[in-house]
Amino acid sequence: MLVRSFVPAHITAFFAPVFHDDPLKTGSLGAGINLAKGTNVFASIETGTLERHVHIAFNGEPVKREEAVISYSVAEKLVPEDFLGEVEIWQYFDFPNGYGFGNSAGGALGTALALGYRFGGTWLRAAQVAHEAEVKHRGGLGDVIAQLAGGIEVRVKPGGPGIGVVDNLFFEDYKVLVVPLGKLSTREVLDGDVVKTIEVEGRNALKALLKEPTPERMIALARNFAEKTGLLSGELLELARELDKVISTPSSMIMLGKGLFALVRGREVEGIRATLSDLGVPYDIVEIYEGKPRVERWFEGGPK
Amino acid sequence: MLVRSFVPAHITAFFAPVFHDDPLKTGSLGAGINLAKGTNVFASIETGTLERHVHIAFNGEPVKREEAVISYSVAEKLVPEDFLGEVEIWQYFDFPNGYGFGNSAGGALGTALALGYRFGGTWLRAAQVAHEAEVKHRGGLGDVIAQLAGGIEVRVKPGGPGIGVVDNLFFEDYKVLVVPLGKLSTREVLDGDVVKTIEVEGRNALKALLKEPTPERMIALARNFAEKTGLLSGELLELARELDKVISTPSSMIMLGKGLFALVRGREVEGIRATLSDLGVPYDIVEIYEGKPRVERWFEGGPK
Repeated sequence: MLVRSFVPAHITAFFAPVFHDDPLKTGSLGAGINLAKGTNVFASIETGTLERHVHIAFNGEPVKREEAVISYSVAEKLVPEDFLGEVEIWQYFDFPNGYGFGNSAGGALGTALALGYRFGGTWLRAAQVAHEAEVKHRGGLGDVIAQLAGGIEVRVKPGGPGIGVVDNLFFEDYKVLVVPLGKLSTREVLDGDVVKTIEVEGRNALKALLKEPTPERMIALARNFAEKTGLLSGELLELARELDKVISTPSSMIMLGKGLFALVRGREVEGIRATLSDLGVPYDIVEIYEGKPRVERWFEGGPK
Repeated sequence: MLVRSFVPAHITAFFAPVFHDDPLKTGSLGAGINLAKGTNVFASIETGTLERHVHIAFNGEPVKREEAVISYSVAEKLVPEDFLGEVEIWQYFDFPNGYGFGNSAGGALGTALALGYRFGGTWLRAAQVAHEAEVKHRGGLGDVIAQLAGGIEVRVKPGGPGIGVVDNLFFEDYKVLVVPLGKLSTREVLDGDVVKTIEVEGRNALKALLKEPTPERMIALARNFAEKTGLLSGELLELARELDKVISTPSSMIMLGKGLFALVRGREVEGIRATLSDLGVPYDIVEIYEGKPRVERWFEGGPK
């Protein structure tokens, strides 16, 4: 059987981590955006072998256990211990790993949904397994629950699926400009001194956003958060200022990746493309993804 | 400005009401299915008059305040007190009112989302206002939160949006057969003696479903619930038994309406149509709606 799942890429705009002994109560407060590109997972499950095998591949290349700790951990939990057969999990990412697009959570959740679909359980159980693996192995704190919510999301109560609460902003006619320039380790940032400033500024930004819950306010608060925490500085900040000149709302920094994002109006897209080509940076303009992740049986050539 | 929203019809399979002084903690446990047909709301908001007017129409016909208490209550909360202008809310229902398709919640949530989109706030705020109006005026207890979840849903923790928790079942290739035959008053059932049996049987069904969370198990538990509570009896039960002969899973009763529903495989649809025409009952075969309700700006002739 072949199962396909899709999980949107998720960009965090601002956040405050919330730690707890219970991984399901660990999570984050904050806000972010889900994109119509993201992670596609194809899970091939075949019975008839004498052993239980699980293999994972990123973008068509098999990866070792230590390079895919989170997804292997999810698979080990959701493939029954007494299952005899081959489970191959092919994860395809529309954005590069480590750049702040929630690929780690996308792979974990996409894997969990595909395996849940095949082996039983529910959406909540699958999502909780993905969240727990993310938290335990420090992939991220809020991506899974944000990806489940879709749209422009606001994490108003921290925690994993079933515990945390995610709200959504209304928006009209926005697409998302992304400028992915490089990696930033979530783990290193969360282990550094800056985490205290992040906690304070993230909570302040959330409080301010809930007073005026609009996308325009969200992106302005994100920029303020990025600068106040010092995460956005140097050349990246200079580039953000260049982008500001051609977009009606501020640009901000992808949390956590070396990259920028901005909300752009449908009608602004052509003008922005021209300017960005001049700046010579890689970029993409992507639709916002509303709704839930998808999971379905897959047949050669597409769904039936 | 014209805003359009869509909220899926929601059929409850089984339930246990949970009452509380706080409407947001009032809700239900249970399971149900969201359909690709449902309630479409068009909200027309025009400024420039000297007074604040709110008008509501069902299927093109203006309705009095006392005939649309829930939706008027939602509108009064979400149209700002100092707004001067005309608010017209046109609700169109794909299924008849009172037949157990969650029209009341669909109208309330669709109205709340459309007004939130225009006047500000968030999805959660809009959904909570809709839930509170439903609970206060006894339209329903679990429809709003179920409609937000989409798919085949399981209410595992009672309460309104932000408080209650809704899970989803995985499913493959099912459509929903509905046989709508007449009205049943939610209010009268909830005020009757049967509510005690409903509370016990609803919780038992939920417990059993979570042990084996599949659509097939859900529909079997729904049928058992419908018969044990005595809600499904007489001619309706006889008709259910007729349906059982041509469908691989049991049929069950729409909670709460005089009607039946069943899960049918895509490949079974043609055969079922033939049999149902012979039975001479009204029916429809509808897709399951996954994902969240929709809200968007609407322009003459469709979305931009």
